[in-house]
Amino acid sequence: MKRLDVDLGDRSYPIYIGRGLIRQPELWAGHIPGQQVCVVSNETIAPLYLESVLAGLSDKSVCRAILPDGESYKTLATLSGIYDALLEAGHGRGTTLLALGGGVVGDMCGFAAASYQRGVDFIQMPTTLLSMVDSSVGGKTGVNHPLGKNMIGAFHQPKCVVADLALLDTLPAREYAAGLAEVVKYGLISDAPFFEWLEDNLDALLAREEAALTEAVYRSCVNKAQVVAEDEREGGRRAILNLGHTFGHAIETAEGYGTWLHGEAVAAGMVLALNLSRRLGWIDSDIEARGRRLLERAELPVAPPDSMDVDQFLLLMGRDKKVVEGQLRLVLLQGLGEAVVSSEAPVEAIVATLREAGIKG
Amino acid sequence: MKRLDVDLGDRSYPIYIGRGLIRQPELWAGHIPGQQVCVVSNETIAPLYLESVLAGLSDKSVCRAILPDGESYKTLATLSGIYDALLEAGHGRGTTLLALGGGVVGDMCGFAAASYQRGVDFIQMPTTLLSMVDSSVGGKTGVNHPLGKNMIGAFHQPKCVVADLALLDTLPAREYAAGLAEVVKYGLISDAPFFEWLEDNLDALLAREEAALTEAVYRSCVNKAQVVAEDEREGGRRAILNLGHTFGHAIETAEGYGTWLHGEAVAAGMVLALNLSRRLGWIDSDIEARGRRLLERAELPVAPPDSMDVDQFLLLMGRDKKVVEGQLRLVLLQGLGEAVVSSEAPVEAIVATLREAGIKG
Repeated sequence: MKRLDVDLGDRSYPIYIGRGLIRQPELWAGHIPGQQVCVVSNETIAPLYLESVLAGLSDKSVCRAILPDGESYKTLATLSGIYDALLEAGHGRGTTLLALGGGVVGDMCGFAAASYQRGVDFIQMPTTLLSMVDSSVGGKTGVNHPLGKNMIGAFHQPKCVVADLALLDTLPAREYAAGLAEVVKYGLISDAPFFEWLEDNLDALLAREEAALTEAVYRSCVNKAQVVAEDEREGGRRAILNLGHTFGHAIETAEGYGTWLHGEAVAAGMVLALNLSRRLGWIDSDIEARGRRLLERAELPVAPPDSMDVDQFLLLMGRDKKVVEGQLRLVLLQGLGEAVVSSEAPVEAIVATLREAGIKG
Repeated sequence: MKRLDVDLGDRSYPIYIGRGLIRQPELWAGHIPGQQVCVVSNETIAPLYLESVLAGLSDKSVCRAILPDGESYKTLATLSGIYDALLEAGHGRGTTLLALGGGVVGDMCGFAAASYQRGVDFIQMPTTLLSMVDSSVGGKTGVNHPLGKNMIGAFHQPKCVVADLALLDTLPAREYAAGLAEVVKYGLISDAPFFEWLEDNLDALLAREEAALTEAVYRSCVNKAQVVAEDEREGGRRAILNLGHTFGHAIETAEGYGTWLHGEAVAAGMVLALNLSRRLGWIDSDIEARGRRLLERAELPVAPPDSMDVDQFLLLMGRDKKVVEGQLRLVLLQGLGEAVVSSEAPVEAIVATLREAGIKG
């Protein structure tokens, strides 16, 4: 078991990484100060792991909110069901919410915790690779709106994160690959040695070998935690975590939430960002090719869907949160492991990048 | 014009109190850093004052969300309409929300600001006495749930509060009286000299005389700001602001939100709290009588509705946020201007107080 501490002053918290951790309540139950716990999970995960978690909570008063599975349910209406469960069970401000699921469950449970009675504690138990390395670290919580992803939410830090690698045994290959997209991202934006480690160890990772997996999750979380600690509320540098995300959100919105997995859209988006960075002369074509190759080896899409056209792409990118007063800011690379947030890319260069990727218009 | 600064470190903000302030944008428009503003108001207030506010925003890109009027619309569904307006107008994270209305508009606009794109700025322009002296100060925001009032929300401080006393000219007498309930509250919980000032000046206040009104709003805000500065997130002492509110919330829930005005329910609730405090031997009957008399003079109800029974009261009080792990905590007085939060009142004493107030069961 590895432990990593996210340093956020009085909101600091530990991340535990290892196999079998949900069956070790001595590790995490101490982060529950009160007698009331609400486990939030979904219909896919609950049958697999809920009983193991509940066994560790036998001395607590527990209610549960089991949500439908999928990004299309990441809405205010589904969120409302968590409040219903809490209020029907009479949970007070001393309750602790426990998110047992992937990013959708974690984001919704986190926002429910941020907003229930103006804020209660919560714990993250991510069940996907993506949520272990990304959404469960950093305190971003929220739900989608028909006009944009994650448009409603809050910054709310968990009390701890329990990344039980045994839970990945049941994760479908496609979702596992989607998680690898974010792992590769950390190498690209801030950790060139990790990128090289990934080039050397991707086969072991694809085989889900425990040692490689532990290292990949740990180093991803180290990179994310470091960026988050520097800029908790995304005033500036934290935005580099969004490499490929502005392009990716456009893809997700165009195709309908859940058609492309988030990590898949980010993978295709990162390839676009690499191309744009090379087009601006900021990285050479070797780095662009290595990034693309690593994502391909991870069985991820490296081009956007050809059903989209340029105008649609630009419109959807303009709705992204990274737009500051009409100015499109993108995360780009100035070298391997050196991401910057920039509004210097001219729209002509963005269009050229989209066209080279096969987008019409 | 009087100015009061609420001291909350980097979340500090000014409250401006005086007549005609919404027509003086030089006072408040400087608190809007960006180009985008969303004015949130309701169908009663917008026809009266929206144009005056918009006149001060002529150099901004403005959208608006005009909500239906009333506590019964303080819901997630109505809140959703604010997000719709923001997203349809393409507002980014640099937008500023402006709440023009009473407590319902302020609470919803504040929570929309707390949660839109994980938090944007907002300004309070309260249009009722209640919201000037209470809900617009202190950063509590939120919406109701069918099972409880203000169960969903956040702490989110405004950038400034503009309390334009001219807006009270159109306030119905019943709502004005409801605001006076919270004014009297400050005297009871933390400011005995202010309570005595109110005994001497209530007639001038009821006549809405400017000098008396300025003083009453200013001293109410001073008292509230002081308590909030000591305990921004209601870990302890801030709860004294809830004198009469646990009883009051039970009344509001039982009668249906909006049947009793919040201030009316709080007035009846404070009389119950005074009675309970006297029953515990903490205050003498003279203070109880003076509190009750002042509320009566302010044309406020001093007894709960006789349609309620004891069991219903206790059940609804148990749902209140002030319940910590099953223990009912109440705000009680240990003297004039000396409120405490206590779980010492035995249920038998609460029942006796309810029965003395005419509640059956």
